[in-house]
Amino acid sequence: MTRSMPETLARVLGEGTVLTDAASLAARRHDYWMLSHVRDHLGASAPSPACVVRPGGVEDVQATLRFASAAGVPVIPFGLGSGVVGGVVARPDAIVLDMGSMNRTRFVDPVNLQASFDAGKNGLEAEQAVAEEGLTIGHWPQSVGVSSVGGWVATRASGQFSTAYGNIEDIVHTIEAVLPNGELVILGKGPRASAGPDLRHLMLGSEGTLGVITGVTFSLRRAPETRTVSAFQAGGMRAGFEFQREIIQSGWRPPVVRQYDERESLRLDARATACLILMVHEGPAAVVAAETAAVGELAAKMNIPAAPPDIVDHWLEQRNHVPSWEMFLQRGIVLDTVEVSAGWGAIGAIYDDATAALKAIPGCLAGSAHSSHAYRGGLNLYFTFAVQTDEPGAMEAIYLDGWRGIMEATDRHGGGLAHHHGIGRVRRAWLERELSAGGVALLRRLKHALDPAGIMNPGVLLPDA
Amino acid sequence: MTRSMPETLARVLGEGTVLTDAASLAARRHDYWMLSHVRDHLGASAPSPACVVRPGGVEDVQATLRFASAAGVPVIPFGLGSGVVGGVVARPDAIVLDMGSMNRTRFVDPVNLQASFDAGKNGLEAEQAVAEEGLTIGHWPQSVGVSSVGGWVATRASGQFSTAYGNIEDIVHTIEAVLPNGELVILGKGPRASAGPDLRHLMLGSEGTLGVITGVTFSLRRAPETRTVSAFQAGGMRAGFEFQREIIQSGWRPPVVRQYDERESLRLDARATACLILMVHEGPAAVVAAETAAVGELAAKMNIPAAPPDIVDHWLEQRNHVPSWEMFLQRGIVLDTVEVSAGWGAIGAIYDDATAALKAIPGCLAGSAHSSHAYRGGLNLYFTFAVQTDEPGAMEAIYLDGWRGIMEATDRHGGGLAHHHGIGRVRRAWLERELSAGGVALLRRLKHALDPAGIMNPGVLLPDA
Repeated sequence: MTRSMPETLARVLGEGTVLTDAASLAARRHDYWMLSHVRDHLGASAPSPACVVRPGGVEDVQATLRFASAAGVPVIPFGLGSGVVGGVVARPDAIVLDMGSMNRTRFVDPVNLQASFDAGKNGLEAEQAVAEEGLTIGHWPQSVGVSSVGGWVATRASGQFSTAYGNIEDIVHTIEAVLPNGELVILGKGPRASAGPDLRHLMLGSEGTLGVITGVTFSLRRAPETRTVSAFQAGGMRAGFEFQREIIQSGWRPPVVRQYDERESLRLDARATACLILMVHEGPAAVVAAETAAVGELAAKMNIPAAPPDIVDHWLEQRNHVPSWEMFLQRGIVLDTVEVSAGWGAIGAIYDDATAALKAIPGCLAGSAHSSHAYRGGLNLYFTFAVQTDEPGAMEAIYLDGWRGIMEATDRHGGGLAHHHGIGRVRRAWLERELSAGGVALLRRLKHALDPAGIMNPGVLLPDA
Repeated sequence: MTRSMPETLARVLGEGTVLTDAASLAARRHDYWMLSHVRDHLGASAPSPACVVRPGGVEDVQATLRFASAAGVPVIPFGLGSGVVGGVVARPDAIVLDMGSMNRTRFVDPVNLQASFDAGKNGLEAEQAVAEEGLTIGHWPQSVGVSSVGGWVATRASGQFSTAYGNIEDIVHTIEAVLPNGELVILGKGPRASAGPDLRHLMLGSEGTLGVITGVTFSLRRAPETRTVSAFQAGGMRAGFEFQREIIQSGWRPPVVRQYDERESLRLDARATACLILMVHEGPAAVVAAETAAVGELAAKMNIPAAPPDIVDHWLEQRNHVPSWEMFLQRGIVLDTVEVSAGWGAIGAIYDDATAALKAIPGCLAGSAHSSHAYRGGLNLYFTFAVQTDEPGAMEAIYLDGWRGIMEATDRHGGGLAHHHGIGRVRRAWLERELSAGGVALLRRLKHALDPAGIMNPGVLLPDA
């Protein structure tokens, strides 16, 4: 046999579906993970894959996985490339399965409030398709314009409006997926079921390691009757957390509740004097009025002054900006964002310890955080760190130092080590602290049951055995 | 070796933990499944198990499963025995693991709104433990006084207040479980995670087939500031469904929304002239006022007249009554309740077809339904059927006819075949229609990965291979 693997695969799928030209391969070497960009910058780029498959439909995905299972070839699912934890890093023997070629709207159903899309559908285009019917998916990750609906499911994503509308697992109705052996499964049927374990959760958060998501049906909402905004500034992060806790535990659910530390508040608006807290209120007009009034009363009672509400309008306008890493790297700046979660009782200590660890890194320009998703029992923190160095060779170590500081501070106080970006490669070493050794062993058993040949996105999610 | 299996196990666990007296064994032969009671009534009772284990703690559960895995002995987890689909039917070679002996409150945390219990804790006692702190679990199955918190998780239960507060999967924070090999796992950490598949969902709905739930931590709510009720009566079921759809899709979330057909409405209150719709509104006073007003306006717009609100008060008082089957069986009456779900577009046809199928059974006294859990995309239906016969030998066939009528009508219109009671034994034959063949194969693969010896509750959930 002198035929190469891509040539053999092209015989199965058809020529146009399997790309092997250098530009197509190079464009899918990795996603938006900072460390991949650091390596590109340093000339130590990830290799190109053996080929890129652009499936025309579910059958092409099935044929690819059947072929790969039989041949023992690694398959790396690729959505629209917006992942930030290293879920996609190519290798020379692998097939990159580029789901961006499957991007149809399948249906929008305004009676049952559902809309169904191919997994590669762009998130913003999906939202626009339902908005035409006066509906909303209600899932607004910062990456909404550059991420796919299948990627949302694979990474267990969260949107900016999650505090009222839930995270992706609360919005997904049905998941269509191809298992590593090529079987097609459709998971999720009625509005709710008690029919064994909810198998959708095998795909939610699977990060390409248990199968390929090919279609997603969402449970929609009608566009809200009213939207209004409010803004406050707390004297410190802990005072703000207590304000948030009181709002949420009193039963209010502003879709957006964000609290910025002093550094991030000043960057957001020069008028800030302390920790800005921004809210968006949506829903029936009477509820929005009641919520806005109640939040104002709580603020007065807790001595939290109001801030100019146009800060929220400004945030709403620029919230989905995705920066280019290269601009920073050229100035010797390594940076990233890291999200964790914790109960109300622990979040203040995690904020203090993690920002202190970041600021202790030599060359630290910024170690800051905001919260963006609140729950009855706690909330998330979204850290940003930026460190400048004149030694390019130190960039990778500096990057990992930043991560380590945040992970260790969170773990020390019992927090959750990954709120909504996933595990990918960057958090693999911490998975055991998140799930415990027993949890990792259980996940490994699932992986082996579904993917005994280990072809699906090797190197992601699970630590090496 | 002349030592019996229970004697050997008693050497491992200690004498007091392993019961073999006839009364203890007989009391745990089965749960509240109607067909087990039919069989008792006809003198064809399920056999007693080999022994009953009453674990004193997690270590006893681990030792029991290690022993059973090594010896290939079936283990049947038993909560408080309120299951209604045949999740517990003993066999002479099995260990019944009676979790009712593990019933401590572990902690109540009013800051992070969590409470943690041993799995065998009685549901009402758990609710009372948190009510003392002004909190609520918010999970009110009809069986709340006779079911365990671990049973809620194992069956994916729903409570009467689910439309606002969610089903059990929305209320559970952490699940502690022992896997068939004896490993202890603690699943669920932060308020929300993106750290691989949510492993809690392996236990939610597992019905004792994948492990034993030993502890449950809930995410609580503060007791609501206000409660009020409202009642309406729609001219027919479809008009009522449209009213409900409009309420829910407009963004209102009364914790309780129940709609009864004409027969059940009359049984509920003799003043009913059509299909009663009962609601309970809870939350901040301003929201409750807004919701009540909005629902009233929608009713007026849709020509749905009000009904006396004291019907709701009466329902609230008697809602957790659990009848004795024997009283009916002595009169030759076979009866059961069956819950399904569907999108708004299909629910009317399912109601019509299923009740028609029930009424076609010779001797049918009642074939009726109400809805009790509403979602953005659809709702559930809770059927009741009662058939009288003077041939005791026909009871089992009549029972299965009732189930078949409802399952087939639901399946024909694409509905979900199990809303909140589980699969157990009675729905096993329909699991493939619910999950598709691929879904059942996937579930079977999970089962084999976790329980390769097949010791956990054999005969439940999965159809025989």
